[in-house]
Amino acid sequence: MRQSLHRLVVETHGQGLVEITAAIKERLVHVDINEGLLTVYCRHTSASLLIQENADPDVCKDLQTFFAKIVPEGRGLYVHESEGPDDMPAHIRAALTQTQLSIPMRDGELLLGTWQGIYLFEHRREPHRREIVLHVIGE
Amino acid sequence: MRQSLHRLVVETHGQGLVEITAAIKERLVHVDINEGLLTVYCRHTSASLLIQENADPDVCKDLQTFFAKIVPEGRGLYVHESEGPDDMPAHIRAALTQTQLSIPMRDGELLLGTWQGIYLFEHRREPHRREIVLHVIGE
Amino acid sequence: MRQSLHRLVVETHGQGLVEITAAIKERLVHVDINEGLLTVYCRHTSASLLIQENADPDVCKDLQTFFAKIVPEGRGLYVHESEGPDDMPAHIRAALTQTQLSIPMRDGELLLGTWQGIYLFEHRREPHRREIVLHVIGE
Repeated sequence: MRQSLHRLVVETHGQGLVEITAAIKERLVHVDINEGLLTVYCRHTSASLLIQENADPDVCKDLQTFFAKIVPEGRGLYVHESEGPDDMPAHIRAALTQTQLSIPMRDGELLLGTWQGIYLFEHRREPHRREIVLHVIGE
Repeated sequence: MRQSLHRLVVETHGQGLVEITAAIKERLVHVDINEGLLTVYCRHTSASLLIQENADPDVCKDLQTFFAKIVPEGRGLYVHESEGPDDMPAHIRAALTQTQLSIPMRDGELLLGTWQGIYLFEHRREPHRREIVLHVIGE
Repeated sequence: MRQSLHRLVVETHGQGLVEITAAIKERLVHVDINEGLLTVYCRHTSASLLIQENADPDVCKDLQTFFAKIVPEGRGLYVHESEGPDDMPAHIRAALTQTQLSIPMRDGELLLGTWQGIYLFEHRREPHRREIVLHVIGE
């Protein structure tokens, strides 16, 4: 049994879902693990992770619209306002989605479903450098 | 340290929670792992996973009612409509719950709490064959 | 590769977020694992886990306010009422957050982001003894 750790930096450009499936697979190319488990971990509380359909980009738009509606932004809505009106909504949207995802591997490939992609969900309006940690264990 | 991968197919019959605890335990019977970690992974974006109370079936009804209310179905509510009016709500409900769950094991048993059951949450109106991957690691 | 299991009991005092980062780190002090993966598992369906900002306590207040608003309590709102008006909302709030979290480790430390803390989110009004299982694997 072996394991390895990898770091992935994702540049975001305001609110929205950024697919990171290809970037993750690229990190795994030189990892000599046939069968095992990949854990994707997001080191932030105003960005999060999501596995979603990567066939129709409208799915990402609708997801963003939904989270904007259910967790509205605006002055006076939250006690925690010091980091801007989009900060507390970002924390709540992150709480409603995932900080970590684990995906089994077989034959050196992630066992994602046919239409599944791994996304970083940026919840802040400004661009950010988001740090993702990958942990792989297996043999 | 050993690991193994298993596949579980769950037939769903429209929207609702299907308990899969017994089916998962059955797969683990012949896995010779005493202490370790089980990862349950759902290969879909319109069905998801949930650990919930399995004592009173009303809990599952209330969960379903809540998600139906908070993520309504209907023409004109979403951009992504091509796969039917229940498809985009299914993706959002999946985003609000889990695609993956990991549960520690001891003495060859899952360390679920007394009232915890593992559920597949079907979000589509039509019956589907849902594919679940189980990864176990331990010794 | 080695693994170990640990038990953490958290006393809660009604609804709210209780930071358990320090208690988890304390359990890991004597675990001789440099690089690996920690899994935190909550054995309950009316309390859950969350990774959130631990710099400003107002973030926890706003999170609690949001979940109280989106999943209201009250007689007549849910079918499952036998365990009290705060029980079914507790199950739904748990479903919207996490029962399990996995965090990579390096140099014997959890790879949490600068502002990330691990929280137990108590959803019931009465105090409870909550049982958390920690599984660590690595070397």
